[in-house]
Amino acid sequence: MTTSPIYAEVTSANAAYAADFGDKGELGLPPSRAFAILTCMDARLDPAKYAGLAEGDAHVIRNAGGRASDDAIRSLVISHKLLGTREWFVIHHTNCGMELFDDATMARLLETSRATASFDGREWTNTAAEGGSRAGHDVEWLTFTDLRQSVVDDVVRIREHPLTPRDVPVHGFIYDVKTGRLLPVEA
Amino acid sequence: MTTSPIYAEVTSANAAYAADFGDKGELGLPPSRAFAILTCMDARLDPAKYAGLAEGDAHVIRNAGGRASDDAIRSLVISHKLLGTREWFVIHHTNCGMELFDDATMARLLETSRATASFDGREWTNTAAEGGSRAGHDVEWLTFTDLRQSVVDDVVRIREHPLTPRDVPVHGFIYDVKTGRLLPVEA
Repeated sequence: MTTSPIYAEVTSANAAYAADFGDKGELGLPPSRAFAILTCMDARLDPAKYAGLAEGDAHVIRNAGGRASDDAIRSLVISHKLLGTREWFVIHHTNCGMELFDDATMARLLETSRATASFDGREWTNTAAEGGSRAGHDVEWLTFTDLRQSVVDDVVRIREHPLTPRDVPVHGFIYDVKTGRLLPVEA
Repeated sequence: MTTSPIYAEVTSANAAYAADFGDKGELGLPPSRAFAILTCMDARLDPAKYAGLAEGDAHVIRNAGGRASDDAIRSLVISHKLLGTREWFVIHHTNCGMELFDDATMARLLETSRATASFDGREWTNTAAEGGSRAGHDVEWLTFTDLRQSVVDDVVRIREHPLTPRDVPVHGFIYDVKTGRLLPVEA
C-alpha cells in the first residue's frame, strides 16, 4: 500500500543492515557509555559518526536546532533518572536553518499556500501545496540569531532546570559543517 | 576545564572524523533525499545505519519514545515547509523504556533522592544524587502501554495536525532491537 521510491530505498537499506546485525541483538537498554547528546536534526550531522558512537553507547536527542525544548528536557531527565546517563552534550552547528528565519516569517509562510517570505536577505518559498493555517502563530519556533549564545542559553537552561541534576556536567559545542569539527563553547 | 573520560573520548573521536571529512563540507542545507525520520533516542538505534543514510540525506528527529510531541511536530513542520522534505517516517522500537514506567512512577522518583519505585513488576532505582522536586508531576512523560498503538497514535496525530500538509505520506514502523529489522505498522 505504502510504496514510494524513498520507502523502497529505506526498507531495502534496512534489510541489508539486519542481514549483517551480528550480536547487536544482545545490547541492553541503558546506554553502555552513560551519556547523552542533544543536537540538531540537520541532515549533514551524523552524531554517531562525529562523536564516535557504536550502537548501544549513548542516547541521541535531536530536534530543529538542537534546542533545549521542554521535550528535549523530558528526554534528558528520563535518560538520566531511569537509564543512568551522567554526562550531557549540547551540540548546535554552523549554517543552521534556525538562524535563517524568525517566528513571524514562519507564521506568515504557514498562513498561505505557495507564498514566499524574505528574512535577513534570504527568500523562503512555501513548499506546501495545501491551504494555509493561522496555527503557526501559536508556536515558538525556537529560532536564534547568535549561534554561540544559543548554545550558552541551552546549556544554562538545562543546568538550571528543576528536574535536571546538579552533578551532571553539561558540555556545549558548535559543530562546523564545513570541517566536521566540534568547537567547545564555554557556558 | 571541562574534562572527563567521556569528554576526551568524544573530542578524540571527532578529531578522527574531521581528519577524514572528504568533501562533506560542500553539502547543502536542505536534505538531498527530501525525507525525515522521527525515532527514539534509544542508544541501540542508529537511524543512519538502520535506514541507510549518508550525511546530507535526511532529517533525523529523536526524543524519548520517538513520540509526536509538539516539539517533534515543530521540527517536522520546519523540515517540510522550509527545507522541503516530502515524506516522513515514525519509528518506535521493541523493548522501549517508555513502555516500562508511567507518569506517576516518574513523578514519584523525581520527588525524592535515592528512592526506588516499581511499575509493572520492574524496580526502578533513582540514579540522581540531588534532592527531589515536585516538578515531575507537571510533565507529560509520553509513556505508552501498547507499542503498535503508540505508532498508530503518533502517525495519526501528525497526519491530522493543522500545520502538517495533507500530501506528505507518514509511514509507521517498529524497529526490532533483537534483529535490526523495521516492521511496517499500518495506520
